[in-house]
Amino acid sequence: MSRVYNFAAGPAALPLEVLQQAQAELVEYPGLGMSIMETSHRGKVYDAIHEEAQANLRELLGISDDYAVLFLQGGASTQFSMVPMNLLTPGTVADYTNSGAWGGKALKEAKKVGQVNVAADCGKEIPTRVPRPEELRLTPGAAYVHITSNETISGAQWKVFPKTEAPLVADMSSDILSRPFDVNQFGLIYAGAQKNLGPSGVTLVIIRKDLAMRAPETLGTMFRYQTHIDNNSLYNTPPTFGIYILMLVTRWVKGQGIEALYKRNVEKAAKLYAAIDSSEGFYKGTAVKEFRSDMNVTFRLGTEDLEKKFVAEAAAAGLTSLKGNRSVGGIRASIYNACPMEAIDTLISFMGDFAKANG
Amino acid sequence: MSRVYNFAAGPAALPLEVLQQAQAELVEYPGLGMSIMETSHRGKVYDAIHEEAQANLRELLGISDDYAVLFLQGGASTQFSMVPMNLLTPGTVADYTNSGAWGGKALKEAKKVGQVNVAADCGKEIPTRVPRPEELRLTPGAAYVHITSNETISGAQWKVFPKTEAPLVADMSSDILSRPFDVNQFGLIYAGAQKNLGPSGVTLVIIRKDLAMRAPETLGTMFRYQTHIDNNSLYNTPPTFGIYILMLVTRWVKGQGIEALYKRNVEKAAKLYAAIDSSEGFYKGTAVKEFRSDMNVTFRLGTEDLEKKFVAEAAAAGLTSLKGNRSVGGIRASIYNACPMEAIDTLISFMGDFAKANG
Repeated sequence: MSRVYNFAAGPAALPLEVLQQAQAELVEYPGLGMSIMETSHRGKVYDAIHEEAQANLRELLGISDDYAVLFLQGGASTQFSMVPMNLLTPGTVADYTNSGAWGGKALKEAKKVGQVNVAADCGKEIPTRVPRPEELRLTPGAAYVHITSNETISGAQWKVFPKTEAPLVADMSSDILSRPFDVNQFGLIYAGAQKNLGPSGVTLVIIRKDLAMRAPETLGTMFRYQTHIDNNSLYNTPPTFGIYILMLVTRWVKGQGIEALYKRNVEKAAKLYAAIDSSEGFYKGTAVKEFRSDMNVTFRLGTEDLEKKFVAEAAAAGLTSLKGNRSVGGIRASIYNACPMEAIDTLISFMGDFAKANG
Repeated sequence: MSRVYNFAAGPAALPLEVLQQAQAELVEYPGLGMSIMETSHRGKVYDAIHEEAQANLRELLGISDDYAVLFLQGGASTQFSMVPMNLLTPGTVADYTNSGAWGGKALKEAKKVGQVNVAADCGKEIPTRVPRPEELRLTPGAAYVHITSNETISGAQWKVFPKTEAPLVADMSSDILSRPFDVNQFGLIYAGAQKNLGPSGVTLVIIRKDLAMRAPETLGTMFRYQTHIDNNSLYNTPPTFGIYILMLVTRWVKGQGIEALYKRNVEKAAKLYAAIDSSEGFYKGTAVKEFRSDMNVTFRLGTEDLEKKFVAEAAAAGLTSLKGNRSVGGIRASIYNACPMEAIDTLISFMGDFAKANG
């Protein structure tokens, strides 16, 4: 069996070169006499990996020294709580945007911690979308404003980030490193690694250092951003193998160039959306056109039975994991950085054949 | 360069067979057409791994259906907070034992959450030890009693677990699966994976299900054990690759047999302690004899300079990571399940030569 085209939403396809290098050095990391998995997180060899991962991210995203680059655990779901536990101090209000499943979950956790204003709510709109910057009803003096840069399930994406007075906080789990943007516009960015950065089990947090000082003294040590800033994400044992793979992925992204990747990502998505729009209604995109995600292309067929058939026949043709999230159904092609153009072309060709045979 | 003998405290040596299998199937997991790192945590292939890891642990430790077996993130350090956040409800008191660095950290985090009684404190005693069961000054009706089954840094270990009326909670990060014990004596057991279970980034939690119901409603979703029980550790994306390695390790442990491993662990430790005790004072064990750890053998030499020389010459001879924790200095040989007898014999031979040359 050869490698399939993998459209999984996360954990997702990784660059083949990264996997091949990880495989070559899995048992004996060069010069170490053991696997990178077996070596101390406080040793020189791991330290070089940790530092390179941070340096690559700083270079790729233009992250200044005002920000810390942290590797945490627990995914975006843990950040849904950690952000308000650290930043939403008593007497302040945080503005949240509900743009779908993930924005909604972030909002729900923040409400457990403190006072929240829903600055925009299009979480249940069909066709799906995220808010327009001008729709936001922001609180003067808000602790922060929270957005979800790309809703993985609905396939809707912020194309232009809002300019806010309060620190802008973004869940970028599903589109970080897929396009250039200005980090300085944000107070805090977090992202589960398992889409564009590496394997599951690593969470990237980019935080403007002054914001970490807001956390109450009573907060548990592991939940304080300041703990991880002070200890360079080495307060406790980090997920070293995951960070090693993330480092290899950032090397690969540097080799491609983030502008070139962005251009290719836009082209990949545009091709797929064109195939949907030219299908004479056989395929129907689920997101409002101006917000269509370049990362998760979501669409429906005429019936759920036909969608099942589509997913099954695609899988048999080597195009896997096209089933939409169990909460919404439909079809979803997740086409992150590591998804090659041939995967797109093969999928489009399959879609044409399937429409012809079932139209 | 060939594989060295790795005495790291964690991340630590893994069974060579496990690494070789992971290497062979890293790029293409059999029948999947992709890496296990790239596949959905909700797919059949990953599901089989997840289920086998749980089933193997249940079989190896005799875990009944009264308990859930969870795979979480954030290490024991996160459990230091999660345990009291879930179990130490207002108006109750938890009994903690301070037995060293790790017990002390657990105690410190619990104090942030609620009312704590220090049931025994030998955290600063030299030579190092853990409390005797009969020393515990327990609170009638305590929420739970917390112990650290093995202090990785000081090299002291509970040989007989206390029988307590309140649920017994144990940090078993550094000795789980190294010896048989009765899970039914415990309310909750947690362990970072990176010593006896797999790579860093996975935390095993074994919890008596009724205890999870104590958590207050306001607790963040990811911090509630009940969330992970209800969702079989799949509420959010788990660290799939880490759990895959953990599953392979549990298979390996089953192949060895836990009784046989225990016997070998005792023999490995006894050989090393005998080498220390027969060195005519050149090497001095740091733990009280009756509490000497079978997992972390700690000792000192006459001077710190001599210790540095020992660590450096050992490393040059292919015996790595023998430096004690930076907080206490000295020498530490961590000899978990995956450390082979040849590593012990080679270390003992080196110790003899070094003593002769420097005595």
